[in-house]
Amino acid sequence: MNASPTVVVIPGDGIGPEVIDAALKVVRAVLGDELEIVEEQAGYSLWKKRGVTIEDETIERCREADAMLFGACTTPEDPEAKSPIVTLRKELGLYANVRPARSWPVPRPVDTEFDLVIVRENTEGLYTGCECEIHDGVTVALRKISEEGTRRVAEVACDLAEERSGRVTIVHKANVLKLTCGTFKRVAAETVERRGLEWDDEYVDAAAYKLVREPDSFDVILTSNLFGDILSDLAAGLMGSLGLAPSANLGDDAALFEPVHGSAPDIAGKGIANPVAAILSAAMMLDHLGYGEEARIIERAVEEVLREGVRTPDLGGSATTEEVAEAIAERVATG
Amino acid sequence: MNASPTVVVIPGDGIGPEVIDAALKVVRAVLGDELEIVEEQAGYSLWKKRGVTIEDETIERCREADAMLFGACTTPEDPEAKSPIVTLRKELGLYANVRPARSWPVPRPVDTEFDLVIVRENTEGLYTGCECEIHDGVTVALRKISEEGTRRVAEVACDLAEERSGRVTIVHKANVLKLTCGTFKRVAAETVERRGLEWDDEYVDAAAYKLVREPDSFDVILTSNLFGDILSDLAAGLMGSLGLAPSANLGDDAALFEPVHGSAPDIAGKGIANPVAAILSAAMMLDHLGYGEEARIIERAVEEVLREGVRTPDLGGSATTEEVAEAIAERVATG
Ligand SMILES: CC(C)[C@H](C(=O)O)[C@@H](O)C(=O)O
Ligand SMILES: CC(C)[C@H](C(=O)O)[C@@H](O)C(=O)O
Repeated sequence: MNASPTVVVIPGDGIGPEVIDAALKVVRAVLGDELEIVEEQAGYSLWKKRGVTIEDETIERCREADAMLFGACTTPEDPEAKSPIVTLRKELGLYANVRPARSWPVPRPVDTEFDLVIVRENTEGLYTGCECEIHDGVTVALRKISEEGTRRVAEVACDLAEERSGRVTIVHKANVLKLTCGTFKRVAAETVERRGLEWDDEYVDAAAYKLVREPDSFDVILTSNLFGDILSDLAAGLMGSLGLAPSANLGDDAALFEPVHGSAPDIAGKGIANPVAAILSAAMMLDHLGYGEEARIIERAVEEVLREGVRTPDLGGSATTEEVAEAIAERVATG
Repeated sequence: MNASPTVVVIPGDGIGPEVIDAALKVVRAVLGDELEIVEEQAGYSLWKKRGVTIEDETIERCREADAMLFGACTTPEDPEAKSPIVTLRKELGLYANVRPARSWPVPRPVDTEFDLVIVRENTEGLYTGCECEIHDGVTVALRKISEEGTRRVAEVACDLAEERSGRVTIVHKANVLKLTCGTFKRVAAETVERRGLEWDDEYVDAAAYKLVREPDSFDVILTSNLFGDILSDLAAGLMGSLGLAPSANLGDDAALFEPVHGSAPDIAGKGIANPVAAILSAAMMLDHLGYGEEARIIERAVEEVLREGVRTPDLGGSATTEEVAEAIAERVATG
């Protein structure tokens, strides 16, 4: 653990800055000024000013930091405009996207209590950026699955499974994608077995079905990039709101933490964005930086505040972003 | 409408034969012996006997038939073994997979009432079968989206939208797959506009989220192959069971009807498979063959029987496959 870890903070667009403000307030409540915060710009506002969505120097600063806290960015429609988050995942080798989903004490569409984590491969799959028109009116995209890319993300799933149930569920579509998903399934299974853990597997369609019906039957889900994208939003739906879904993007030398939600331009500036996903992402970051106890304190505070009904409108409440952040920060400071 | 339409029936493996039996019983209750039924084999049992999962003559017979009723097939793990259903979709040009999902009077994980239909492109996307190892340990699959392939499935979505809300929701991931999903979105939108209908769109992850929270906000969903595969299983989860989810695979010269569920080897032979998905698929087939009134009679009978609690174990009931089929057949004959 560094004396004073450096954290690059990228608030981004839309509700990004609002929820990041809230998260930093909670971090300060538990850690004071122990972190060195460097703020950087990325996204739509930067695109309008400079014609890029993220600058090379920002990527460099991220590379040197101990961690990054990312809000949300709007990617311009322009085909030239790159998604900042996809760029960072690729440039910094953030190959594992860890997305915990659990039932919090809030109204949820499905009653079942659950506590699972999706480990999503974060650099391959359909996110290669390799697309072309191979024939008039016929376009193709490359879906890449490599053995090494699968192995390294499987190791992260195993790290989590070791602290949890010891079981990894591999989600794929190897009945259709016999080679690519076949590779993913085989290498993932080999990795889990080598680590002395258990695995089972599901087709991605069956996994979507089972998540709706028995989310409590899952613990650690390991899957490829786009499947993880879809299933983690599904899981956020089960939680009752994307506003509760945090995530970590992990690589060998870098770690970025971000709420799963996007920049939500429709509610930006209204002060009603749910800050919990960003606050829980910050807690995951603290855990990663060696402040495990502080992370637990934040999670407990979130739980209590939600239970008491201090909730933003996405959860049926009437609290503002600031009120929720304030309530959690207070709880953290006293607890 | 033919005097006596020919229907090729492929019961398949696992629970396939059981649910097809049930469906044919209901069809006979409403239509007597009006259909000419030709039974064909495909799937795992055929593979064991002949080393193929479907025979060329079967495909020919399907080509000549007025419709097909398909149960479910188990595809052997062998990399040489082709999925019969994927083969039929491709060989017969069944480019539109129509998957209605609605709330029936049964216990469901989510309370909201809904009535939507997913129109899934059925021959392109990641189902091209084009995969290779381009480098040691590096595999790729081709995802193909063509303008023509998109246009023709969009027309089917428009046909449905015309009879429903007049609105099509295009589901894609054009923020990442700018070219392939971009093409899908653009051509789909153009088609809908040319037909004088309305469209909106959602990213596939957001659609999964919204389906869990507000399934009633959707009417006709138009999407590419694998997205449709995942979302239709999700929607079946919301219905309370895959055992209630029927589908039509439509082409210009052929139509195949099948339950969305698979062969479910774990419950095969126990007499407890839910026959409703197969029965509703048969109703969709009758509608297609010009027996619209008979299709409505079956749907109403299903609704009544489910409301009365005659349900298989997947719906929390204790009725057998045969009891449910019998109850629906009786209702059909008297109503
Ligand atoms: C914004 C988008 C590129 C991104 C993704 O698809 O990965 C988002 O949906 C996510 O899940 O983080
Ligand atoms: C069995 C499998 C190949 C098939 C598919 O992926 O299309 C099934 O899941 C379906 O949805 O009909």
